[in-house]
Amino acid sequence: MMNKQIRMAARPVGFPKESDFQLVETAAPKPGAGEVLARVIYLSVDPYMRGRMSEVKSYAPSMQVGDVMVGGAVGQVMESRSDQYQAGDYVVGMFGWQQYAVANEMGLRRLDPKLAPLTTALNVLGHVGLTAYFGLLDICDPKLGETVVVSGAAGAVGSLVGQIAKIKGCRAVGSAGSDAKVDWIVHELGFDAGFNYKTVTDYGAKLAELCPNGIDVYFDNVGGAVTDTVMRLINVHARISVCGQISQYNLEKPEMGPRWFPTLIVKRAKVHGFLITDYAPRFGEGIRDLGQWLSEGKLKYREEFVDGIENAPRAFLGMLQGKNIGKQLVRISSE
Amino acid sequence: MMNKQIRMAARPVGFPKESDFQLVETAAPKPGAGEVLARVIYLSVDPYMRGRMSEVKSYAPSMQVGDVMVGGAVGQVMESRSDQYQAGDYVVGMFGWQQYAVANEMGLRRLDPKLAPLTTALNVLGHVGLTAYFGLLDICDPKLGETVVVSGAAGAVGSLVGQIAKIKGCRAVGSAGSDAKVDWIVHELGFDAGFNYKTVTDYGAKLAELCPNGIDVYFDNVGGAVTDTVMRLINVHARISVCGQISQYNLEKPEMGPRWFPTLIVKRAKVHGFLITDYAPRFGEGIRDLGQWLSEGKLKYREEFVDGIENAPRAFLGMLQGKNIGKQLVRISSE
Repeated sequence: MMNKQIRMAARPVGFPKESDFQLVETAAPKPGAGEVLARVIYLSVDPYMRGRMSEVKSYAPSMQVGDVMVGGAVGQVMESRSDQYQAGDYVVGMFGWQQYAVANEMGLRRLDPKLAPLTTALNVLGHVGLTAYFGLLDICDPKLGETVVVSGAAGAVGSLVGQIAKIKGCRAVGSAGSDAKVDWIVHELGFDAGFNYKTVTDYGAKLAELCPNGIDVYFDNVGGAVTDTVMRLINVHARISVCGQISQYNLEKPEMGPRWFPTLIVKRAKVHGFLITDYAPRFGEGIRDLGQWLSEGKLKYREEFVDGIENAPRAFLGMLQGKNIGKQLVRISSE
Repeated sequence: MMNKQIRMAARPVGFPKESDFQLVETAAPKPGAGEVLARVIYLSVDPYMRGRMSEVKSYAPSMQVGDVMVGGAVGQVMESRSDQYQAGDYVVGMFGWQQYAVANEMGLRRLDPKLAPLTTALNVLGHVGLTAYFGLLDICDPKLGETVVVSGAAGAVGSLVGQIAKIKGCRAVGSAGSDAKVDWIVHELGFDAGFNYKTVTDYGAKLAELCPNGIDVYFDNVGGAVTDTVMRLINVHARISVCGQISQYNLEKPEMGPRWFPTLIVKRAKVHGFLITDYAPRFGEGIRDLGQWLSEGKLKYREEFVDGIENAPRAFLGMLQGKNIGKQLVRISSE
């Protein structure tokens, strides 16, 4: 059985190109003891993958040229050498960008397609939802009536952050990169306000207008100019959760920016970066609340699909460019 | 009775000059109900005063041209219209840069000169000590064996931060602006290491050498280039307490610097600015521990005196230039 994979063909310089990826056909792997062979159904493409493609020392080892692209995915077990899984089981795991993958039982979680759509395991009920949940609630502890600003508000994580802020009784304000995105977060998701950072020219005036009581909590997915403006508008005792900095990932040379330490003193404010993996011991708590809110209709999400492993690089590059609204997935095979 | 005061004569542009201050002689004030008249004995000069001289909106209202310079001081009550204080009592309060001051009983604390030298109320057993205590212990929670770096390590606050870090079983490393200061913190105060940021050229190599296990906690009094280097060397889950940014206070135009949000994600690190006044409800806890450590000889301090209200501006400017070691005080009258 042949297996199509996407490997890293070259380390991207600046914004990645299609030629940084390579489609390879190889024999499908065989599971060893404690492992399963799965066919991949849905592949998630996420901003963090850009970091893995760089040589810069980061929280996880860099990928090397020739490596299969990393990525979380939903699949179905075809062959099992694990006591815990059997053929036919739906599972989520780090299968990578390929049609067939072998994975150790330790890194898998079984999914029940009757409880929730399979794709939610890569979205609201997976790392995406948990990132929004802990990054907002644990780091920022938003209080009733406070103003929460989220950048990248129409992305998979950002769209949930604003909705969770609303559940907590906050004013939710988002920045996003198109009028359609702003329309979606305000009119579908229930954000109080949003703005298109690509057409608004004076972020300071716009944010001051949308946040008349200042900014108590900022959930940052983007960094750069929007963040610089938010930092000038934070209230005393503001809390800032740094989840992503997608505006900075594809720069060939790091940008300089305003120094924020003096502001942090005056505002007695906290900036805290996080990785969702550090919350693993508390995932159950997050999934329970997220599942509850989802079932009550309090959390809405949107998915966009690209079909075929060949098109995964295009889906990934489009996501980095902000072309999608909500969660970008690649459908590798049918459910 | 005449009262010599130092008033702000002009808002400083960049580094303050002697001409930004003005010596004024005026009649000594009379206490109203609930107030005392005190003669000032020791005046504290501190970096925060530079912020008050600026028009920039900060945590406290700016001073206006013509205002008496703000400042904490130890004094002795000469005349009391408060039930709580009587003539002869030693007190600490915000008396300002002047020989005689009226203050409300609410803003005073009585001192017992038999328990500790009067000057300690402006140093180890006052806001200085509490700043080191809560800024290090509450914000950074340093653990046994961790490495704590402090900038401005020979200053009033920094010198205590390193000693408290040692009490907690940490490795303490400091930066300071002269070889004499480095010598003092290492050989007198017990820091494990220090470096002179004015003569060391490669901060990265030096800090890497002095912090072989990386940096877990950073207590920042200074900002700028030392902080930029520390940020490149922080460990996973590092905690950064931002107490002061003295390198930035006298810039005519704010500096740009490296963007740290991406680093905070990778390192899951926290940066938290604070003002000691927010800890007022817990001051008792801090004073108890600081007093205990002081009595056990675990906290050492050094004071430098300038005599006479006329010389307060010179003492202040010298402190901003880092001329003093330890705590800079102005002796306004004899005890």
